[in-house]
Amino acid sequence: MEESRFATRMHGMAGDAIWELLSLTQQPDVISFAGGMPSPDAFPHEILAELAGELLRNQKTTVLQYGQSEGYFPLREWIAQWVRRKGIVATPEEVIILTGSQQGIDLSGKIFLNPGDKVVVESPTYLAAINIYRMYDAAFVTAPNDDVGLDVEALEAVIAREKPKLIYLVPTFQNPTGRTLPRERRQVLGEMLTRHEIILVEDDPYTDLRYEGEAVPAIKSFDTTGQTIYLGSFSKLISPGLRVGFAIARPHILRKFVLGKQTTDAHTAMLSQALVYEFCSRGYLDEHLKRVCAMYDAQRLVMKEMIERYMPKDIRWSQPEGGMFFWGELSVGVNAKELLAKAIKEKRVAFISGESFFADGTGQNTLRLNFSNSSPEKIEAGIRALAAVFEEHM
Amino acid sequence: MEESRFATRMHGMAGDAIWELLSLTQQPDVISFAGGMPSPDAFPHEILAELAGELLRNQKTTVLQYGQSEGYFPLREWIAQWVRRKGIVATPEEVIILTGSQQGIDLSGKIFLNPGDKVVVESPTYLAAINIYRMYDAAFVTAPNDDVGLDVEALEAVIAREKPKLIYLVPTFQNPTGRTLPRERRQVLGEMLTRHEIILVEDDPYTDLRYEGEAVPAIKSFDTTGQTIYLGSFSKLISPGLRVGFAIARPHILRKFVLGKQTTDAHTAMLSQALVYEFCSRGYLDEHLKRVCAMYDAQRLVMKEMIERYMPKDIRWSQPEGGMFFWGELSVGVNAKELLAKAIKEKRVAFISGESFFADGTGQNTLRLNFSNSSPEKIEAGIRALAAVFEEHM
Repeated sequence: MEESRFATRMHGMAGDAIWELLSLTQQPDVISFAGGMPSPDAFPHEILAELAGELLRNQKTTVLQYGQSEGYFPLREWIAQWVRRKGIVATPEEVIILTGSQQGIDLSGKIFLNPGDKVVVESPTYLAAINIYRMYDAAFVTAPNDDVGLDVEALEAVIAREKPKLIYLVPTFQNPTGRTLPRERRQVLGEMLTRHEIILVEDDPYTDLRYEGEAVPAIKSFDTTGQTIYLGSFSKLISPGLRVGFAIARPHILRKFVLGKQTTDAHTAMLSQALVYEFCSRGYLDEHLKRVCAMYDAQRLVMKEMIERYMPKDIRWSQPEGGMFFWGELSVGVNAKELLAKAIKEKRVAFISGESFFADGTGQNTLRLNFSNSSPEKIEAGIRALAAVFEEHM
Repeated sequence: MEESRFATRMHGMAGDAIWELLSLTQQPDVISFAGGMPSPDAFPHEILAELAGELLRNQKTTVLQYGQSEGYFPLREWIAQWVRRKGIVATPEEVIILTGSQQGIDLSGKIFLNPGDKVVVESPTYLAAINIYRMYDAAFVTAPNDDVGLDVEALEAVIAREKPKLIYLVPTFQNPTGRTLPRERRQVLGEMLTRHEIILVEDDPYTDLRYEGEAVPAIKSFDTTGQTIYLGSFSKLISPGLRVGFAIARPHILRKFVLGKQTTDAHTAMLSQALVYEFCSRGYLDEHLKRVCAMYDAQRLVMKEMIERYMPKDIRWSQPEGGMFFWGELSVGVNAKELLAKAIKEKRVAFISGESFFADGTGQNTLRLNFSNSSPEKIEAGIRALAAVFEEHM
């Protein structure tokens, strides 16, 4: 069948570079820093097994019947309370449960974007967001950066000039850079929103994986006019396989999210939603997060140490205080994709070259390393092997 | 916020009439024939509780980690074998697991439709399909009918004239009419596809709920050029709350489905997929379906008897051999929506008035009754009450 028979939005759509690479890197002899997966050792499977048995035996209609597109109401209530610690004030009715928070990016495109509408993204930004907004024929505008990260004052000039419809940000432990937008800039950004007709999509799946430093409030907490759509996820906290995320937005926007969700998957799997609710509302989450954060912090520190000890000194590395990633900038002219091919072939070690994270086609000299899904032993061996490849071919 | 700030595809999008009505009809004193829900008594919750405990204890990485966008491979294999009884020959690689088969309708729009592209639908057709294709700015063309149902020869003239991109059909125990396209017409349709550049979306969630008559092969079994996308679902067979459906298509189309799914929800909940797989592959499905079909058949026969005994004689009723619905056509000029309002108010009985199932704005004198989610006692009382309302106000 000719490509022309498909919708224009599909033309040139390649697969998500990460999903494509994942199958390669799942071979058991490969040490992979490529994906963005939690560690299987971080899954609370014994507790979930108990809860699933109980739910299926005692609440069969809740977990097996059709549910509302808005989501399971007790979970919406619990989330509305829980996000107060991030500074967000919301009613349960302002929460919609999603099939992973990625669905929230898709729905923001669906309800706001006409072909050609502009979307501001960071450079680099979350890869899937680029692919998703591309499906809605968005035009990308790059958000300006300085050494700290997003330059919110320069951003206002961009907004005034380009009139974008959406801003998409991962402000905390960003994927891919691990960077966090400081509190003051969040405040400036939140206040700036009120001066423009614009929607901010604040994608925040990593914020509860903080290993050092002080928590910062969500940008949404500084937004007094309800222009922020906050996206959260249980994928990195409990399990990605359950596919439970959420969006928080004012009622007039949330209503459109509900309509958009009705016409895609009707509602998110009820057993998944009820499992997350029981896990959280019975108080397991806080204990669990302490354990997971201690584990990931140890992995982060080993990776940091190995990078400092073995990696060539002319690579600039991010210093993440949380999340799952280190970000490296090689000297200009060095091609990370070529290094990746050599690393897989020569040493059976994988990472992600960074160019897919740039909506503007730059970033060939960048790379992302994931530390959440490898043991300290594998991190030690893998970084030493990678450093040798880099040393030889750079 | 002004409506104009949302994408044009959202303008005028009302909620799905059925989802909206559902919350009303879930009040305990209402007898509802409105939804399309399975009976909670048809959920195999004890077996699923066993399986969920076992999966979470012994296969935590399978059910809690990220999975592939294509779906859980053992389930894809099982489905490829299972659909042979419907006459479909497919490899596991030609199967994608979806978050409910409704997601397959959405993905067919996403990958094929440019704004203004034409979609052929039956009149009436599945309500959600109208809403979904509307989101892609489709123009609807009505498929011609005769007394048996879809007139496939007249359809070919429509295709030649209108050059639609997609045909969307629910050929077996159709929602809403309960009608089934006869075998001979399926064959003519399958062969006709080869003469046109067109995609058929064969949405087939009810086919295994047959209570009398002979099974008919899927239209896809007569399609030799791979132009049919077959959609199937476990919602009516095991549980809708798990959200597991599937699409079967030739590799060049399936590949686009995978890309489309990557950018919406990444993949379907793994626990749901693994539960369906274990339930089916361990041989529980056939036994379970026997029990469910016996239960629904009893409910169908009570509804049929009550309709014949009490309903005004000038209503034309469908005679479904399977599925979940009776369809009624009132005399021209009678408004089913007004009768619905009276039935809820005076007798606390609900159904669905039919006009939402018509893409062309007709059907004001039609209605749909669901029999799968009410006990024989409630069906008896509910139909008697409805008949009294109809008698009085028609």
